[in-house]
Amino acid sequence: VSASLQALAEQFGCELRGDSARVVGAVATLASAGPDAVSFFANPKFKSQLADTRAGAVILRPEDADVCPTACLMHANPYATYARVAALLHPAPRAVAGVHPSAVVAASARIAPTAQVGALAVVDDEAVVGERCIIGVGTVVGAGVVIGDDATLAANVSIGARARIGARCIIHSGVVIGADGFGFAPDGGEWVKVPQIGSVVIGNDVEIGANTTIDRGTIEDTVIEDGVKLDNLIQIAHNVRIGAHTVMAAMCGVAGSARIGQRCVLAGGAAIINHVNVCDDVLVLVRSLVTKSISKPGTYSGSLPAEEVGVWRRNAARFKQLDRFAERLRCLERGKPAQDGD
Amino acid sequence: VSASLQALAEQFGCELRGDSARVVGAVATLASAGPDAVSFFANPKFKSQLADTRAGAVILRPEDADVCPTACLMHANPYATYARVAALLHPAPRAVAGVHPSAVVAASARIAPTAQVGALAVVDDEAVVGERCIIGVGTVVGAGVVIGDDATLAANVSIGARARIGARCIIHSGVVIGADGFGFAPDGGEWVKVPQIGSVVIGNDVEIGANTTIDRGTIEDTVIEDGVKLDNLIQIAHNVRIGAHTVMAAMCGVAGSARIGQRCVLAGGAAIINHVNVCDDVLVLVRSLVTKSISKPGTYSGSLPAEEVGVWRRNAARFKQLDRFAERLRCLERGKPAQDGD
Amino acid sequence: VSASLQALAEQFGCELRGDSARVVGAVATLASAGPDAVSFFANPKFKSQLADTRAGAVILRPEDADVCPTACLMHANPYATYARVAALLHPAPRAVAGVHPSAVVAASARIAPTAQVGALAVVDDEAVVGERCIIGVGTVVGAGVVIGDDATLAANVSIGARARIGARCIIHSGVVIGADGFGFAPDGGEWVKVPQIGSVVIGNDVEIGANTTIDRGTIEDTVIEDGVKLDNLIQIAHNVRIGAHTVMAAMCGVAGSARIGQRCVLAGGAAIINHVNVCDDVLVLVRSLVTKSISKPGTYSGSLPAEEVGVWRRNAARFKQLDRFAERLRCLERGKPAQDGD
Repeated sequence: VSASLQALAEQFGCELRGDSARVVGAVATLASAGPDAVSFFANPKFKSQLADTRAGAVILRPEDADVCPTACLMHANPYATYARVAALLHPAPRAVAGVHPSAVVAASARIAPTAQVGALAVVDDEAVVGERCIIGVGTVVGAGVVIGDDATLAANVSIGARARIGARCIIHSGVVIGADGFGFAPDGGEWVKVPQIGSVVIGNDVEIGANTTIDRGTIEDTVIEDGVKLDNLIQIAHNVRIGAHTVMAAMCGVAGSARIGQRCVLAGGAAIINHVNVCDDVLVLVRSLVTKSISKPGTYSGSLPAEEVGVWRRNAARFKQLDRFAERLRCLERGKPAQDGD
Repeated sequence: VSASLQALAEQFGCELRGDSARVVGAVATLASAGPDAVSFFANPKFKSQLADTRAGAVILRPEDADVCPTACLMHANPYATYARVAALLHPAPRAVAGVHPSAVVAASARIAPTAQVGALAVVDDEAVVGERCIIGVGTVVGAGVVIGDDATLAANVSIGARARIGARCIIHSGVVIGADGFGFAPDGGEWVKVPQIGSVVIGNDVEIGANTTIDRGTIEDTVIEDGVKLDNLIQIAHNVRIGAHTVMAAMCGVAGSARIGQRCVLAGGAAIINHVNVCDDVLVLVRSLVTKSISKPGTYSGSLPAEEVGVWRRNAARFKQLDRFAERLRCLERGKPAQDGD
Repeated sequence: VSASLQALAEQFGCELRGDSARVVGAVATLASAGPDAVSFFANPKFKSQLADTRAGAVILRPEDADVCPTACLMHANPYATYARVAALLHPAPRAVAGVHPSAVVAASARIAPTAQVGALAVVDDEAVVGERCIIGVGTVVGAGVVIGDDATLAANVSIGARARIGARCIIHSGVVIGADGFGFAPDGGEWVKVPQIGSVVIGNDVEIGANTTIDRGTIEDTVIEDGVKLDNLIQIAHNVRIGAHTVMAAMCGVAGSARIGQRCVLAGGAAIINHVNVCDDVLVLVRSLVTKSISKPGTYSGSLPAEEVGVWRRNAARFKQLDRFAERLRCLERGKPAQDGD
């Protein structure tokens, strides 16, 4: 898809500087863009690349336009504007209406006439697939599942347990929604399975990354609210509720019955233990482990960075002596140095 | 499925208080249960919910019956009893005997006549599927695999390498059993693949969560004993042995040739490094890393909880000074304060 | 497959001690090998097993031959030699040329005549599958994907986004290559999806473990160079580049736009945050978190080992007091003990 700078400026509310008739047909990085591509500048780290760019136009903040040697599409939020321009120039695949002859669709399933069901996909009894949905090849839509309009499920996705998926969701390959939660009652040294009879409810505009798992609830539902974005290889346990517009980077884990507020950000590898509540607007830094409820918006951290191994080991060995250090400090403060200090 | 309280009490060995003829048809939480549902009470945290419940009956310990405003099914282990009642009222799907016409079953495979093979499943050469098994849609049972009676494999499971799966196992979507272990021999700056020729042997009554991976052994087999329960996104490397009735929450990792005893519990994100032995009855707390063999039953921990970022960073910065702290303490104890303290 | 010791010695450049006509047909461990099997000895830990072995022959270093009671195949690198011998005696499955009738292959796809496409696999428009490739059952090769000669994709793999896979790659079940990277621009409390239009380029001789995910690039490509070996459940984010012959054990994570050099080793659970550069020949120890670029080859560590819970908790509690400890130490060094020490 191509568009003139004039058209882009109008559609996305930018102020244009430069040749309004220039046509661009792709996005590219500042360093690699040629005159038929549009790029963006938002991070000062790349200022030298901006100065040298040969892009057809650059989306940037008005105050950065001076540095730009080429046409500018100026906007207060250049990154979001870039995202919208990129979606226009590189549109996502659209549903090609119809069910592939190799797909297996139950007679009681309802597939919207504009939806696409790919090769070797399965849509089970009484499942409902909305308008313009794409059900990827090899994907399994279990019995009673309901999928809203304009949702896209990639290849080899598994949706079970009467899950409900909202409109415009994007679900990547390998995702498993609605597997049993992990519930077992101890009984005489063995474990009795606790039936998992809840489901999973996913709001609108949710995106779920490859191989992420979202378990069905024990009795009630696991709930992912509107606009949540989950990266790859994330675990969402049974009965969890994740508030609207919260995002999680890859490999996060949320344990059973935890509740996370709206607009939270969990960096990669962060985890929330079971039954913890995290309020709205919390940022959990990379690989941090939240073990207590958080009731105050803010930033939380809990990981130690790697060091050169000799340095690390010397300090890690002292970690094991910390309680003794405390004792020795106390003795010193009382004027009686410990005899067996080290 | 419905049952009278009288019938439940008899079947599960409970003492009944209240209307023995009352019929219940579902389980529910204390807070949401109506008169046709049964709930349970085991955790004192929910005592106020017990006092207010409108459930048809509550399963609880005899000593908690006083607080309960409704009928009681009294049992020394209310949670396990609840699990059994829930399984009666909400039975798991049963195999509908037969092979879906779209499934691909090798001529040399043996499928028990009572087993169900779902749409687009594959059962390869000489595989054996036991009585009343459910092989989910899109699931692949590799050549020579043997699956015991009453096992359930959900959709899009991959079983390879002549793995043996015991009776009554439950394997969730996306699980991969029998992929090659990770073995490479260094040779001149490159890596030579070490053929992985062992298999995977899984006992009876094992449950394996979504997207968990269990690799085949290098030469001998990777072994999961009876009654083991694994949650989602767990990695079990080649040659590992996991003892009976051990459970692991999501995202645990067990590295090559580690051995874990019976009745162990690994909380979420715990990991065991390679060649380590963990004895029976060990509890490893959330996200702890076991780097040495454990020969004494008990509880082991190794994770630090997240804190407000300012607090965390101040202490984490000091962690890097710990070895120097030790030196300074020693100097102080000798009466000679270090000159360059901080 | 069987071979005489003479033939093995010649093919793999070993010095032979013992009965050159002896025929072996399998590999086995030192402890379990019988006279028709060959084993290897490289780790001094197993010296007593070497002394007791009944193997038909043992591959070992010349200096270890004295201890061996049976025939020896002597080589300076016994483990790599063992790997090659094992591959000869236990050959990997070879492609059985042809497309299974249940597979769905687009008219515009090009499948080499010697390639095997398994049951219920999908090869989409304009995809190219090289000579002697194996495309496993249920595996999806997306539109425009190019797969080099002699590559093996196991069951239920998902390859999308015009990815390119090199020759001789081995990709295990559940792997997802080419899902969208995780890119969202904040805009008024919501998130705008940043289209992911790059692809994934994977070199020759790469192996990728079960359920690992490799995302497509945002604009340019995610790149995995030749000879890289990735274990299970690893996350490789968009725009990452991994240098040749680097290996990662299970559950590693590499965040967006990180670059890792050649011949690096990441132990299990290690992670690299976004935009970090790691130079060649770096070893990152188990579960260490690399938060800054590394420009010096060497070993880096960042994890604390689990301890008995009482010991751990005492020290972990002191971790939270570290900044205060520093203050108290400083006071002591100045001769003025803090009043509120502990």
